[in-house]
Amino acid sequence: MRVIGVDPGVTRTGFAVLDKGRSRVDVVAIGTLETDKGLPHAQRLADLGRGFAALLVQHRPEVVAVERVFFSVNVKTAMSVGQASGVILAAGATAGLPVFDYTPTEVKLSVAGVGTAPKQQVGAMVAAVLRLDAPLRSPDAADACALAICHLNRSGLARALAAQGADR
Amino acid sequence: MRVIGVDPGVTRTGFAVLDKGRSRVDVVAIGTLETDKGLPHAQRLADLGRGFAALLVQHRPEVVAVERVFFSVNVKTAMSVGQASGVILAAGATAGLPVFDYTPTEVKLSVAGVGTAPKQQVGAMVAAVLRLDAPLRSPDAADACALAICHLNRSGLARALAAQGADR
Repeated sequence: MRVIGVDPGVTRTGFAVLDKGRSRVDVVAIGTLETDKGLPHAQRLADLGRGFAALLVQHRPEVVAVERVFFSVNVKTAMSVGQASGVILAAGATAGLPVFDYTPTEVKLSVAGVGTAPKQQVGAMVAAVLRLDAPLRSPDAADACALAICHLNRSGLARALAAQGADR
Repeated sequence: MRVIGVDPGVTRTGFAVLDKGRSRVDVVAIGTLETDKGLPHAQRLADLGRGFAALLVQHRPEVVAVERVFFSVNVKTAMSVGQASGVILAAGATAGLPVFDYTPTEVKLSVAGVGTAPKQQVGAMVAAVLRLDAPLRSPDAADACALAICHLNRSGLARALAAQGADR
């Protein structure tokens, strides 16, 4: 199964395309989509939608996993995050893909085993699952990976990881 | 000048396409876009974007005027409104149109002369400007009209209305 995890934002949207094989998770692409701060807000949202649609065409994920945004996190930027999230959700559905959203607590619980895990701990678990040399520097990309892993866990990664352990 | 005013929402998005001639404002189309509550949230956002893009093709407005959403209004539905707003803004910019946003206070001030005007008073002014027999029943459509009128006011409706008065 190939999933794209997305951490939406107008300025910077993290994404991670991960492939779940029989016994491990492989990285297809990890990165961020950035929009030009000099452009009008609506144009930046349009560029984000176009950029994300291009990622879907390029990497052909079967499912989209997005962070479910809450107000309480950061009131100042929450509307902008909501707008970016709307653009991403619509682009995923327009591409005909099922779209799942997970709360930050669900993601932390799934990836680090604790719903209140600090970002650093989640980043370390992401690096371990993806066999990276070091945690990702971009918090948006790391969050996108965590979202994708959360979705894979929910669809049976636990089994795959168990098999991976048995192979060692 | 032809403007489309939009009051975005996932369940119901009000729209109003208005034409400003030399001495009056004519209604081209007023209505609401509704999405199917039985569909997944992302699909509803995609449908909203597609429906709005179709309106732009059908009515060929030159500019989009959208309500600038605030958190304080209704925390419970604000994220959903933000997502719908993001989809509308992106669709407007994707169609190559300039997109303007106005706060509720700016709209009330422009349409009813008072930034704290109650909805009923704004609705009555909308009906007067558009020469409707009665205020619109749909609050979303009425808000969309007010947004469009606000934009026209800002781009010189005051002059046009003065000329209209002089013709009487």
